[in-house]
Amino acid sequence: MSARITNVTTHDIRFPTSRLLDGSDAMNPNPDYSAAYVILHTDGDVEGHGMTFTIGRGNDLCCAAIDAVAALLVGRDIDGLFADMGAVWKLVTGDSQLRWTGPEKGVIHLAAAAVMNAVWDMYGKHVGKPVWRLLADMTPRELVALVDWRYLSDALPPAEAIERLQDKASGKADRIAQMQDVGYPAYTTSAGWLGYSDDKVRDLARQAIAAGWTHFKMKVGVSIQDDTRRARLLRDEIGPDRFLMMDANQVWGVEETIENMGHLAEFDPWWIEEPTSPDDILGHARIAREIAPIKVATGEHCHNAVMFKQLMQADAISFCQVDSCRLAGPNEIIGVMLMADKFGIPVCPHAGGVGLCELIQHMSFLDYIAISGSLENRVLEYVDHLHDHFVDPVRTHDGHYLPPQRPGFSVEMKPDSIARHLFPSGAEWQA
Amino acid sequence: MSARITNVTTHDIRFPTSRLLDGSDAMNPNPDYSAAYVILHTDGDVEGHGMTFTIGRGNDLCCAAIDAVAALLVGRDIDGLFADMGAVWKLVTGDSQLRWTGPEKGVIHLAAAAVMNAVWDMYGKHVGKPVWRLLADMTPRELVALVDWRYLSDALPPAEAIERLQDKASGKADRIAQMQDVGYPAYTTSAGWLGYSDDKVRDLARQAIAAGWTHFKMKVGVSIQDDTRRARLLRDEIGPDRFLMMDANQVWGVEETIENMGHLAEFDPWWIEEPTSPDDILGHARIAREIAPIKVATGEHCHNAVMFKQLMQADAISFCQVDSCRLAGPNEIIGVMLMADKFGIPVCPHAGGVGLCELIQHMSFLDYIAISGSLENRVLEYVDHLHDHFVDPVRTHDGHYLPPQRPGFSVEMKPDSIARHLFPSGAEWQA
Repeated sequence: MSARITNVTTHDIRFPTSRLLDGSDAMNPNPDYSAAYVILHTDGDVEGHGMTFTIGRGNDLCCAAIDAVAALLVGRDIDGLFADMGAVWKLVTGDSQLRWTGPEKGVIHLAAAAVMNAVWDMYGKHVGKPVWRLLADMTPRELVALVDWRYLSDALPPAEAIERLQDKASGKADRIAQMQDVGYPAYTTSAGWLGYSDDKVRDLARQAIAAGWTHFKMKVGVSIQDDTRRARLLRDEIGPDRFLMMDANQVWGVEETIENMGHLAEFDPWWIEEPTSPDDILGHARIAREIAPIKVATGEHCHNAVMFKQLMQADAISFCQVDSCRLAGPNEIIGVMLMADKFGIPVCPHAGGVGLCELIQHMSFLDYIAISGSLENRVLEYVDHLHDHFVDPVRTHDGHYLPPQRPGFSVEMKPDSIARHLFPSGAEWQA
Repeated sequence: MSARITNVTTHDIRFPTSRLLDGSDAMNPNPDYSAAYVILHTDGDVEGHGMTFTIGRGNDLCCAAIDAVAALLVGRDIDGLFADMGAVWKLVTGDSQLRWTGPEKGVIHLAAAAVMNAVWDMYGKHVGKPVWRLLADMTPRELVALVDWRYLSDALPPAEAIERLQDKASGKADRIAQMQDVGYPAYTTSAGWLGYSDDKVRDLARQAIAAGWTHFKMKVGVSIQDDTRRARLLRDEIGPDRFLMMDANQVWGVEETIENMGHLAEFDPWWIEEPTSPDDILGHARIAREIAPIKVATGEHCHNAVMFKQLMQADAISFCQVDSCRLAGPNEIIGVMLMADKFGIPVCPHAGGVGLCELIQHMSFLDYIAISGSLENRVLEYVDHLHDHFVDPVRTHDGHYLPPQRPGFSVEMKPDSIARHLFPSGAEWQA
């Protein structure tokens, strides 16, 4: 007998990160890193854990939305679900009444992300593989069947996607061995939070250099004077050969970005991230044309694959920063990665937050092993916070992520961490 | 003493429209027209009523989001709010933690719409004017100050927006008189719902012709055979001189749209509405190029002004279908109408739903009186459902909307209608 999904529990988990200004930036001065966390229970011996990420208020809305979305799965046979994960994505995003509140964006899509992450976690545990390996072992046809092509096939017909994957198939085994051995290159954002003092930034930069990091990201956007001072400080610390990235977290307009990056160009930024509204595809394209050779990156608030499709079609981005909790799980991320491969755009995912590193690493391993086959200009964000709350936390070595070995999606939190950070009843919030 | 906002009540109101397939289309087979309804209470003698619109499940999420957003206003002095409504918009959309769950899209932005609609309703009642008149009486500078220009000024600098309004100021009094006398031209969608039988569609079309309607919208998108049969039926009924519009409600891909509209061109559609994903700006632009002279319309799911900006910049739409409950109230709609005027695109708002006709009529009166000054190619959607639940329902005459006379935003529902349709406790749902 196969198992069925019997019920769903959600947990509003919040970490009081705003107390130390971890994660602070020009748009988000006081984030409390939070997980709208879901457990899919079955009548068998497997569970699926998943989450979406928020920064505090509104996490309860995501939990309520997860309840509504996950209800679509209750009663379903899990082998039936795993046999057609493309259909599961359409089921989870396709309830017409719930879809109206998006569509495919905002709270309802964040909830779909949590639910899809939980289904994939369950699938990995069920077959005894980490999700990156489960996906890497699929055939090109199986991978492509995970994606909803309705709104994407004008940019990449599914038949062409299959051909592109087939062309890369012969090197997969070597790339798996390489990942197990060396890992996937990462960069750190932990030094550059906006709320940190100059002394703290300097100390963290030196520690990061000593630990082998080569790419450093700083926050900008409060004032050009402040941005300039901090950029000079960081560039002085890291020297001319390491990479410096800047992140404005959407606070600028299009013309303001062009003007400000003119001033900051002297510090040789590799990219400017989220310069303006994440919805402004044509604005990003204009910025990219006018600030070259500085490159444009965005994606953590890019709410679905249709938006990424256009960012690529419009030559608006040089780096694609998919997020495991903004897009609705591996299905949608694979669609974006396939398009990025066609358009020649490196995928450098967003991972600043709680649980994001744990989830997205699986997708970057997949991207290298089966989709792009390249590490050129590719770095995966790493933030050194809150990993100890996870059962199977990320492992890094010499500025590289090492592949998870345990079955599942690495998103399962320790029961004690969940209990202690429940909002508002947990001990951490009652203190 | 001025009044203060003391507390907020929300009501999950749903009408069982799916029982008769009112409102049915290819994407939404069984909508239950719903209002996530909010009342802002004060310690004075004025209340503000507002709502956003959904089609059933998920309405509870919007109510919860309204509670979170409206909490930002509790304790505020209403005269202080009315003195700077541009600042109110930034307050309501600007909480950084809640913003993360959008930004400016999905459930949290629908909630912002409900709250802003309620503040404007209160403002109109406080000064004893219908909202259209309150806005039409503002100076160009006051109107432009309502808009958040951060992400829009690259397309239309605010100083240019003021100049454009000043150029139209001299004709305002005449246009107000014309609206009071003749009203604003409308079109009807009531005949074309997808779930209706051919006989019902034919009967409704004949009734609508007899009532003076000249523009008719039909739903398409289930199958090209079915679409063709229904288009022929409607074109036969309305004759060659009346206008036929088609609405696919997002079910097609980009290339699918181009192919299908090739088949349907023989019925001389004026526009195809929502052919594909509402997020696909470049897709709409390609469709517009390839199906000309058939025009493209979209907007009811266009989630913010940044998206409309790009639809206009990309020559993707010939009609701008703003929605009073998708955009966050008059502030954001005015920004879109100002851009539409600059780009020469007629605003033909979406109003299919409950309460949408009541709200959006105010904005179309404003558009004609103060912004575009034109009725050319402009028609406002009218749907003949559920108006009797409102205290001040829309009035139409000879295919025209007549301006509301009562103070406020016309969005206030009768207490008995609210009580009877509360979900799931109301009598209508207990039956």
